[in-house]
Amino acid sequence: MNKHILVVPGDGIGAEVTTVGKQVLEAIARKFNHEFTYDEALIGHVAIEATGDALPAETLEKMRTADAVLFGAVGHPKYDNDPSAKVRPEQGLLQMRKELGLYANLRPIKLFDELLSSSSIKPEILRGADILFFRELTGDVYFGEKTRSEDRSTASDLMIYHKYEVERIVRKAFEAARTRRNKLMSVDKANVLESSRLWREVVQALTPEYPDVEVEHQFIDAAAMLLIKDPKRFDVVVTGNLFGDILTDEASQIAGSMGMLASASVGDSTGVYEPIHGSAHDITGKGVANPLASVLSVALLLDISFGMKAESEAVIAAVDAVLKDGYRTRDIADADTAADKLLGTFAMGEQVLSHLA
Amino acid sequence: MNKHILVVPGDGIGAEVTTVGKQVLEAIARKFNHEFTYDEALIGHVAIEATGDALPAETLEKMRTADAVLFGAVGHPKYDNDPSAKVRPEQGLLQMRKELGLYANLRPIKLFDELLSSSSIKPEILRGADILFFRELTGDVYFGEKTRSEDRSTASDLMIYHKYEVERIVRKAFEAARTRRNKLMSVDKANVLESSRLWREVVQALTPEYPDVEVEHQFIDAAAMLLIKDPKRFDVVVTGNLFGDILTDEASQIAGSMGMLASASVGDSTGVYEPIHGSAHDITGKGVANPLASVLSVALLLDISFGMKAESEAVIAAVDAVLKDGYRTRDIADADTAADKLLGTFAMGEQVLSHLA
Ligand SMILES: CC(C)[C@H](C(=O)O)[C@@H](O)C(=O)O
Ligand SMILES: CC(C)[C@H](C(=O)O)[C@@H](O)C(=O)O
Repeated sequence: MNKHILVVPGDGIGAEVTTVGKQVLEAIARKFNHEFTYDEALIGHVAIEATGDALPAETLEKMRTADAVLFGAVGHPKYDNDPSAKVRPEQGLLQMRKELGLYANLRPIKLFDELLSSSSIKPEILRGADILFFRELTGDVYFGEKTRSEDRSTASDLMIYHKYEVERIVRKAFEAARTRRNKLMSVDKANVLESSRLWREVVQALTPEYPDVEVEHQFIDAAAMLLIKDPKRFDVVVTGNLFGDILTDEASQIAGSMGMLASASVGDSTGVYEPIHGSAHDITGKGVANPLASVLSVALLLDISFGMKAESEAVIAAVDAVLKDGYRTRDIADADTAADKLLGTFAMGEQVLSHLA
Repeated sequence: MNKHILVVPGDGIGAEVTTVGKQVLEAIARKFNHEFTYDEALIGHVAIEATGDALPAETLEKMRTADAVLFGAVGHPKYDNDPSAKVRPEQGLLQMRKELGLYANLRPIKLFDELLSSSSIKPEILRGADILFFRELTGDVYFGEKTRSEDRSTASDLMIYHKYEVERIVRKAFEAARTRRNKLMSVDKANVLESSRLWREVVQALTPEYPDVEVEHQFIDAAAMLLIKDPKRFDVVVTGNLFGDILTDEASQIAGSMGMLASASVGDSTGVYEPIHGSAHDITGKGVANPLASVLSVALLLDISFGMKAESEAVIAAVDAVLKDGYRTRDIADADTAADKLLGTFAMGEQVLSHLA
């Protein structure tokens, strides 16, 4: 197949990890006789520096015409410590999600057996955990109107949901549950929030259409607790933008490290694939970042945007093999990791490539 | 001392656990020669059933005139599954918080040594963890305007903060940090939310006044992850109403069980003391609920509202002793708990009382 992939490294370790991700795409093309072409574009802090804009029009245009986007990360500490900055890297990310209609953010939490002991959670609690999050990505308090009073002493963000926004993501989650263990947990705060009550009404209204799926409603506070207490109870989870942001970061501890988690953002047009970790400026340029989340993002890209199941599975198998060989980046190493098995970003990438050769 | 305490059991297991809490107050009064008088009042579902109102005027009036309130829980599954119910038990709780000006919710997360192994988190990650949360309790999306469009297809909640609301809780947290390990973590989502940017500005503006306190800012998603990855990194945490709700429930897993966690809500008038667990209708009336969160709420009440340090410490010591004796309720039992050490709500209460006699 001929496919055109846009690589958008963004900020911080984004450049390092997407470099490895792209190498994996190249290896897959060779192995499976595909013709992949590539382009690059700017977003976030690097885009602000170069163009004044966190999402330059050129980047957006390239995204629209690509078959898929391999994304790195955005963010810069400079803005975090300056709450009144007018232009912010994250605006680029949010605008991209909105402009491309990427309303469904899929975050699979799958624990590789070899990493069972690298989590802070007990292995016996974790073993067998396998969760697929559907985070709504273009609504909620992320995109509702923001206000700041003239004297700057009052600030607000509107948490808002429309029925159609809830319905389309909940349907996707129901469909996914059918291909898994037929369990769907919907997370909201319907005991306090009107937008959550709308959310719950929509889930309840759709439930009869999926009689084979067992539906459970949890409040976000209880869900955040249960996720640690009993991760195996979770199969497919569907929730809003803000609650999804929080729960999936928390859930990264089930997989041992944020450095292992990939995500797919899909919707009306081009799909975007990215690690759930951020730009991590504290380790940027040191060559120690874990590239496996980007590699696993490639696996999602191949599967979801290109329908290439075998190719996707080959990538996952390569990651599995590398972990079985005992290779680790710093974030997933433990006290027993031998010094010669502790690899940097690119050496880890080489190991994955060697299994794909 | 003469003190008047209002007991407000509320819904579900609230009645069982506050019964034990009150017995502990009585034991303390005897032991330390205090004169405690008591009254009772309704809130939540039981209040709706009796009066049509989740917070009857009589209850509010009794709260205002009491020296402290020992609170149970509110909530009923009936309303959770009916998102369009007009009157809801939680309204009583929220109205109480607002009316009494209970803007500071203190939630100490302290792990009793004996329960180290009952958590799903590894003991070596937990040992030494000791966190004090300051959750803002009368602002945020909990109290901002709610809307529902006429065709019911759009719903919103306003997430809003005023500078003075942030300032008063952040000051309390700074003061508390000074009496502990001099570390304060402020949690927000300033990379996306305007109300969080205000929050962060206020914390930054106050920081120079507390040069002895080390301040760290974290985004809520990262904080939810770090709490599990490295709970010992946390000392005092200050955050908004919604993020505090989520983080403290999650943090309950550090203490092994929600059944061990107490909270104090303080502000302009009478302080309210309650477990962080909910009404738990699935176990209501079975006599198996863990009463220790209510007992530890009594310890907070004695300390914070009455300034009775020795009395408060006696209660904590009694809980500690009971756990050392090996007694457990179901939620904190493990595979090694002998059958005769597994106690119900009231038998557990008896053990605490025997150590206070
Ligand atoms: C960088 C930030 C705006 C973003 C979010 O909150 O969505 C990130 O945390 C994520 O989860 O992709
Ligand atoms: C019952 C509910 C409204 C309440 C809240 O969200 O504040 C509870 O979860 C709590 O933490 O006290």
